[in-house]
Amino acid sequence: MSTWPTALIVGAGPGLSLSLARRFGREGYAVAMVARRQPVLAELAAQLDSLGPRLKTYAADATDPAAVGEVCAATLRDLGEPSVLIYNAGSYLPGGIADITPEQFEAAWKTGCMGAFLFARELLPAMADAGRGTVLLTGATAALRGGKGFATLAVPKFGLRALAQSMAREYGPQGVHVAHVVIDGQIDTPRLRERDPDRPAHTLLAPDAIAETYWQLHCQDATAWTQELDLRPAVEQF
Amino acid sequence: MSTWPTALIVGAGPGLSLSLARRFGREGYAVAMVARRQPVLAELAAQLDSLGPRLKTYAADATDPAAVGEVCAATLRDLGEPSVLIYNAGSYLPGGIADITPEQFEAAWKTGCMGAFLFARELLPAMADAGRGTVLLTGATAALRGGKGFATLAVPKFGLRALAQSMAREYGPQGVHVAHVVIDGQIDTPRLRERDPDRPAHTLLAPDAIAETYWQLHCQDATAWTQELDLRPAVEQF
Amino acid sequence: MSTWPTALIVGAGPGLSLSLARRFGREGYAVAMVARRQPVLAELAAQLDSLGPRLKTYAADATDPAAVGEVCAATLRDLGEPSVLIYNAGSYLPGGIADITPEQFEAAWKTGCMGAFLFARELLPAMADAGRGTVLLTGATAALRGGKGFATLAVPKFGLRALAQSMAREYGPQGVHVAHVVIDGQIDTPRLRERDPDRPAHTLLAPDAIAETYWQLHCQDATAWTQELDLRPAVEQF
Amino acid sequence: MSTWPTALIVGAGPGLSLSLARRFGREGYAVAMVARRQPVLAELAAQLDSLGPRLKTYAADATDPAAVGEVCAATLRDLGEPSVLIYNAGSYLPGGIADITPEQFEAAWKTGCMGAFLFARELLPAMADAGRGTVLLTGATAALRGGKGFATLAVPKFGLRALAQSMAREYGPQGVHVAHVVIDGQIDTPRLRERDPDRPAHTLLAPDAIAETYWQLHCQDATAWTQELDLRPAVEQF
Repeated sequence: MSTWPTALIVGAGPGLSLSLARRFGREGYAVAMVARRQPVLAELAAQLDSLGPRLKTYAADATDPAAVGEVCAATLRDLGEPSVLIYNAGSYLPGGIADITPEQFEAAWKTGCMGAFLFARELLPAMADAGRGTVLLTGATAALRGGKGFATLAVPKFGLRALAQSMAREYGPQGVHVAHVVIDGQIDTPRLRERDPDRPAHTLLAPDAIAETYWQLHCQDATAWTQELDLRPAVEQF
Repeated sequence: MSTWPTALIVGAGPGLSLSLARRFGREGYAVAMVARRQPVLAELAAQLDSLGPRLKTYAADATDPAAVGEVCAATLRDLGEPSVLIYNAGSYLPGGIADITPEQFEAAWKTGCMGAFLFARELLPAMADAGRGTVLLTGATAALRGGKGFATLAVPKFGLRALAQSMAREYGPQGVHVAHVVIDGQIDTPRLRERDPDRPAHTLLAPDAIAETYWQLHCQDATAWTQELDLRPAVEQF
Repeated sequence: MSTWPTALIVGAGPGLSLSLARRFGREGYAVAMVARRQPVLAELAAQLDSLGPRLKTYAADATDPAAVGEVCAATLRDLGEPSVLIYNAGSYLPGGIADITPEQFEAAWKTGCMGAFLFARELLPAMADAGRGTVLLTGATAALRGGKGFATLAVPKFGLRALAQSMAREYGPQGVHVAHVVIDGQIDTPRLRERDPDRPAHTLLAPDAIAETYWQLHCQDATAWTQELDLRPAVEQF
Repeated sequence: MSTWPTALIVGAGPGLSLSLARRFGREGYAVAMVARRQPVLAELAAQLDSLGPRLKTYAADATDPAAVGEVCAATLRDLGEPSVLIYNAGSYLPGGIADITPEQFEAAWKTGCMGAFLFARELLPAMADAGRGTVLLTGATAALRGGKGFATLAVPKFGLRALAQSMAREYGPQGVHVAHVVIDGQIDTPRLRERDPDRPAHTLLAPDAIAETYWQLHCQDATAWTQELDLRPAVEQF
């Protein structure tokens, strides 16, 4: 039997999700990481080997209900019932309304919004039964504003925010804390650094700093829960 | 060759869409009405026979890209290029997060949000070429607030609002007016009257009153366009 | 006895208020115009002489409770009980937080927000008794966003919006329609034209176009009232 | 010379402000507490005597520019330059628009909004010079929604939120973190307990829990600052 609490992180990558795994891992959590592609997971596992048996990675399509069910079952079996769900998945394809294909529009929504619903419906009932749990959903400025050329980001992110509110109102009184985090700015990831090596660090959100706020959200007392907050660099225009 | 302007109304039914067809029809517009089921269209056609050749109805699934393309082509052929697009389609299935099936969640989003995208991407380029056009999207309170048990309404309606903003910012400077209308309350439809015959009329939104505001939005001068407004009965709590 | 309905317009000037007086005057309304300075009123009166006895102007400080009471009493006596109140007053002094004096901060709030409260508390009870009336409050982008250097605009405009909502929720069910209009952009006034004669007209809000929407708000059916809408030029970035 | 950092808390009382003083005091901060009435301060001082010389209390009217200047000067002299400003002052007088007097409307705004401006303009320049500082402003649900009978709360709280945004946009890039906290619900204070002794604790915001989030906001890394968050009990309807 597992003796640790478990966090399941969807949309794993070498930026925010890596920092989240470290932050929750440091507190004794077991971490299940889900990403579509195995090589991404292998790289993450290499950077998280200090977690030992407390780390499991699962390659799965977060938009496929059956695959999501299997990942949740595997996590339960391998690490125990998750009490924390973090959803970071998303993609964005810039383009005007007439340039986006129906397939692209649908795929962006499924990755950015529907996947969170699929994981939530698998995991929320057990959290409610236990009377405790935390769901953290990663939003963006595009959750509040639909910009020109941003429909494939704004439609999923608005939808994710709607889902966050519906879940918070249903599950909050049952002891499950659902919070939506509006990331306003660019996260300091290895990929961004490759593209733009001269970008000053203080203009980017440090993944560890974001992860710290996620941890603090998880630790909030149930008499004073945050449903939504924003995060941006001090120098970001907004 | 048609000598009238044309409005295409999606999500046709005997409430708001009927009033919209009458209101735009009264001003000399030809009206194309799209609904999923033929009997609904037949009933509408019977009530709109005064429009004569200026009315066409099309049975189609607004979430099917090919069907949407065919409806737009047929409208162009039968009535002329639409300069007004009104999207009223939507459905809502009450239920908690764990009670909604993935199929229901996806279907609700496709009807409430993706359909509007499909029609918009067919019709916006010609409007932009003409330097004029109006797109009116019917939202709801659930576009601003994700309530408990309302995920299948809020996720599509938040998404539709995101889409409205993205379209407005892209197409507004090209002369196309995109507005999002937040309907806060229940519309006075025959179906609602059957269910609740004693409900006082002043507690419901009169479809003709809504249609009047849609018409006024369409008539606004391009130096003072509204992107979003709300509509509710005077006695509605909000 | 007066046989006309009466509109009272506060913050009278040669832009929006002049257009509003014309628009409501054209429909048979008597118009009371209130401004701080007599010369402004004299100029307005000259442009509105076709209203004949249906126009009265009152020089008064909208932030002085006694003066507001006197203006309302004079309007009642001279033109009849106002069924429409429009509040356009406001001022803005750009500057950083440390540059604004306490006197400036307070004066900006009194003009932009408290004056509306003073007129409303004088006029709303009679509107409620009559079971009808319209209050239209002119907001700005700064009602939704506090920008750098804009505290003397945003604090009053946020406050005016709060007031609009409180009034709408209290008086709506009593038959009084309270709406808040977010003007996003610059209004095409003679003063702006003097400063910037080359500015293309389509980049500015035409006062007549704004006035038309105010009139339509006033005409809305009580089953479908708007509490808030925005207005901006088609080409405005937002 | 002081060797501790200093926090100045305005609107001191035996609920949130007491918890804040303890939380920041526990981290080694000196605390200056400002309230209108001396007995309130005496009671606070008795409960905070463990802070020893790191506590100073000042009786002052936060809406009086001269008094605010004196308090800031005294704090600088007695404890050192404040690097943290927390503004909790506010009052609320329930009542309809026509029942509120102009004096009450003005006084509520001065206490709830203008006082924050007065302290900010005294303290922000030194924070900007130092390139660091934190300003935490206590909002309420009424900062986002103007309810019936709530004008004397909503107008100041909307204004405070506007001020928070203007300050954040001006001073954030200079290293000063300005955050606005929307408290949604009732705080568990001794006064509330006297009025309603049977109210279950989990339905009220624990002051220590709120203070913990204020402390975490203060500790956020400058690449990931929160400008606004909400706090409410898990069981609160919203």
